[in-house]
Amino acid sequence: MSTNFDGPIAGVLGGMGPLAGAAFATRLTMLTDAAVDQEHIPAVLWNDPRVPDRTQARLHGGADPLPWMQNGIARLEQAGAKIIAIPCNTAHLWYDELVASAHVPVLHIIESVADDLDRRGLAPGPIGLMGTPATLKLGLYQKHLEARGYQTLVPTEQEIADFCVPAIELVKANRVAEAFEPAAACIARLQARGARAVALGCTELPLAVPHDRRAALGIPLTDSIDALALAVIDWFRAQSASGKAAA
Amino acid sequence: MSTNFDGPIAGVLGGMGPLAGAAFATRLTMLTDAAVDQEHIPAVLWNDPRVPDRTQARLHGGADPLPWMQNGIARLEQAGAKIIAIPCNTAHLWYDELVASAHVPVLHIIESVADDLDRRGLAPGPIGLMGTPATLKLGLYQKHLEARGYQTLVPTEQEIADFCVPAIELVKANRVAEAFEPAAACIARLQARGARAVALGCTELPLAVPHDRRAALGIPLTDSIDALALAVIDWFRAQSASGKAAA
Repeated sequence: MSTNFDGPIAGVLGGMGPLAGAAFATRLTMLTDAAVDQEHIPAVLWNDPRVPDRTQARLHGGADPLPWMQNGIARLEQAGAKIIAIPCNTAHLWYDELVASAHVPVLHIIESVADDLDRRGLAPGPIGLMGTPATLKLGLYQKHLEARGYQTLVPTEQEIADFCVPAIELVKANRVAEAFEPAAACIARLQARGARAVALGCTELPLAVPHDRRAALGIPLTDSIDALALAVIDWFRAQSASGKAAA
Repeated sequence: MSTNFDGPIAGVLGGMGPLAGAAFATRLTMLTDAAVDQEHIPAVLWNDPRVPDRTQARLHGGADPLPWMQNGIARLEQAGAKIIAIPCNTAHLWYDELVASAHVPVLHIIESVADDLDRRGLAPGPIGLMGTPATLKLGLYQKHLEARGYQTLVPTEQEIADFCVPAIELVKANRVAEAFEPAAACIARLQARGARAVALGCTELPLAVPHDRRAALGIPLTDSIDALALAVIDWFRAQSASGKAAA
């Protein structure tokens, strides 16, 4: 048995929110093809929820979350992380700054969602979008999905306030079961408007709409937690393959 | 808003197995009284599943997991952890060695379970025990619970092999739903033999017996993941109170 503590370790910048960070660690494990502990992917989760609110910072002049996110990435790198995954969509409004200060590659959650849509043959959409006010109003998903050939459908300002925000805030307050109803209402509105699939584009939303209640909604959902976890699994497989090739 | 990145951060030595480590992060979040992200407890989860199997090491001369566990604790300390929680019961067979090499306090999961039993008024037992072969055969729970005044009831060698081991191994292989039946069978045997409560004394077992199926079993369960998470929450509250008193 090797006692080489290095090797491919995935770093997860969580905490935004902490339940989403923990859920990412769970889904990374559940989506990995492994029969015993030792076949799972080594990962370290920095789950610091003190990061100032991302939407407040971007839309309302709130405190800057960037130094907190940079601190988290630095801690993950010190711990041995060879790649960074950030299970928070809104945090990707600072993606360029985070990449610039990181010393290892940083996955992009929305590119992972686009990969998931591609894999499932859902082009050219339209893809209904759900997320935080900052993610939706600043066009983060629209920019990335449209560059990949997808049309997008965005909830109205009223729908964001009535459905997306409560669903997200209820999960952050541990009131997960109550978050289903507003999330499902938004999905139904987007479907009625012609969406071919809906992106759960905030990592609280996959918790609001648990896996065992999705089939009943009658429309494909792309889950930003699962999409990012699949990207980490792909990275790990490639590392392991190249490690074996080099050995 | 403070940009002091230090303060009370909980370190979690997970990976044994990784689903249990992730579940611990989830339960730590869910059991915390918090309305927004920033009220949750900062935590870092070292979820390295490469640690050699603990039961193999202790009962069958397998590779030594101690250097891997010490490495994990050192990485957590470097990342800023001010306390260590280890959501793996069997790992506590190395508790004294881990405490000796750590520079911050290390919680003891079985003391946390005893605290949970005390809180729920379940003394003097008898408490039915479930866990890995090493945990049960080497008397880890028996020693700690009996020192706290509890009688214990241990499954037979056959019951450990037929019920505990499959339930644990199925969770580690991501076959979580299949793990319920053997776990529930063992709980029923212990109950029939006079147990007043059953300790899910391996961190895979709370996943085998999910929260929403527990009431139907008709016997109190003490969950080593939740008990340890509650100990972290108590520690965090005490830190915050003393921090405020000092400020």
